[in-house]
Amino acid sequence: MSEATLDRGGARFDVVAFDADDTLWHSEDGFHAAENTFCDLLSPFVADGVDLRSTLTATERKNLPTYGYGVKAFGLSMLEAALSVSQGRVTSDVMDRLLGVVRELLLAPVRLLPGVAEVIVDLARDHRVAVITKGDLVHQTRKVTTSGIDHLFDHVEIVLEKDPESYSRVLREFDVEPHRFCMVGNSVKSDILPVLEIGGHAVHVPYHVLWELEKADHPVGHGRFGEVESIAEVPDWVRQGGE
Amino acid sequence: MSEATLDRGGARFDVVAFDADDTLWHSEDGFHAAENTFCDLLSPFVADGVDLRSTLTATERKNLPTYGYGVKAFGLSMLEAALSVSQGRVTSDVMDRLLGVVRELLLAPVRLLPGVAEVIVDLARDHRVAVITKGDLVHQTRKVTTSGIDHLFDHVEIVLEKDPESYSRVLREFDVEPHRFCMVGNSVKSDILPVLEIGGHAVHVPYHVLWELEKADHPVGHGRFGEVESIAEVPDWVRQGGE
Repeated sequence: MSEATLDRGGARFDVVAFDADDTLWHSEDGFHAAENTFCDLLSPFVADGVDLRSTLTATERKNLPTYGYGVKAFGLSMLEAALSVSQGRVTSDVMDRLLGVVRELLLAPVRLLPGVAEVIVDLARDHRVAVITKGDLVHQTRKVTTSGIDHLFDHVEIVLEKDPESYSRVLREFDVEPHRFCMVGNSVKSDILPVLEIGGHAVHVPYHVLWELEKADHPVGHGRFGEVESIAEVPDWVRQGGE
Repeated sequence: MSEATLDRGGARFDVVAFDADDTLWHSEDGFHAAENTFCDLLSPFVADGVDLRSTLTATERKNLPTYGYGVKAFGLSMLEAALSVSQGRVTSDVMDRLLGVVRELLLAPVRLLPGVAEVIVDLARDHRVAVITKGDLVHQTRKVTTSGIDHLFDHVEIVLEKDPESYSRVLREFDVEPHRFCMVGNSVKSDILPVLEIGGHAVHVPYHVLWELEKADHPVGHGRFGEVESIAEVPDWVRQGGE
C-alpha cells in the first residue's frame, strides 16, 4: 500500500463484494469442456456443417427464463439439444454420458483462481467482504462452503438475476450505501453495469472464457468503473478509492 | 376472532411464516402426476413387477445431496432413472416427453389452496408475514411473484435446506426471537421439527399428498406444536397464542 493511500484515512468502501464463478474460482472452463464433450458426442448424429455449439447456446437462451442459471439448467438444455439436433437419433448411451457430464460439473472440486485467497484475506482486514453470485442454490452453496475461504466472507448472497433491483435489495440487506459499495467480477453485464446503474463502484477482472450470454460492452471512461488485469490488483484499486 | 383472544392484548407472534409448496399452493400433486406419467411411459421398457415409482424415488434420494430440491433436480433424476431402469432401451421420443413434463411443471400456473389469500390478508394486519421455502431459486421465485399474493409478504426466503441452522439464520435476518416466531407448513420434517428445535412455534396443516422423502413422525403433545385441519384455522391458532 502506498503512503498516498494511507493518507486518505479510512477505507473508501464499507463492503467489497466479489462475483464467484470465474472471479474467485474457475467455472466457465468447465462448461466449455462440457460443451466440447457435447459436440464430440453428438457429431456422429448430425450432418456435416451443423453448428452444434450454436444449437446448444440457442437452447440455453430459449430456456433461460424457465430454467435460470446453473449446471442443472445447462444439463436439461444439453439433453434437449441432443434430442432435437439429432432428430431423436441420439442413443441412450450418449444421453447417459451427458447426464454424467452434469454430475461431474456439480461435483467438481472448487479450483480457486491465483491470488484469490490472499486478496480476500487482505481486504477483509478493513472491509466487509461479500460474495454475490447467481445460479443454482445447492451448487453455489456447495462451492462456497468447500472453497476453503468461506470463513473470510461476511455475507454470501445467491441471487436469481444480477440486475439493478437485485443489487439494490442486497445492498439494503448489507446496510450499505451504493457509493460505499464496490463490486468485483468478470462479467460486465452482470457484475459491472447494474452496479454502476445504482450508484456503486465496480471493477472488472477478466477471465479467459466468457459465456456467450454474458457478453456486453465495457463502460470505458465511467467514473466509478475500473479495469484490472488480475484480482491481485484489486486491493490497490479499492484502497485508492476506485481511481 | 373471539373476545378472549382480543383480551390477550397485542399479537403473540411478531412473524408468522408459511411454507409455500403444498401449504400456500398445490405442488406435490403435480409431481405425483409427473411420476404417473413416468411410470406409464417407462412400463413398456421394463419387466412386469418392476416398481418404477420406487426406482424413481431411489434415484431422487441418491441425487438429493448433489441436485438439491425442485423440479430441475426431479427432472434430471427422472431422465437418469428412465435410462437405467430400461437398461438403455428407452426411446428418444420418451426422453423428449419426460423433458416436456419438466417444462410443464416449471411453467404450470400457481394454484392457491382454498382460503390462503384470506388467511394471509387477515394475519398481515397485525403480524409480519413471511414465506420460507426450499427448492429451486428461479422456480420458487416465479411461483411467489405470480401467486397474486406476493405483495402481502414482508419477507420471502428461499433456502437450501430447512434445518435448524437455516431457520436460525433466517430468524436473525427477520430480527425476531424464536419464541415470537410461528411457522406454518405441511411437512413435519421441514416445517415443524427444526422450528421447534430452535425454540419457535409451529403449526402443521396437512396436504393430501406427501413426498416420500418428507415423511416424519408428528411431535404430538409438544407444547409449541399445533395441528389444524386447514389453513383457514391458522389465524385463530396464532391469535390464541399457539394453544
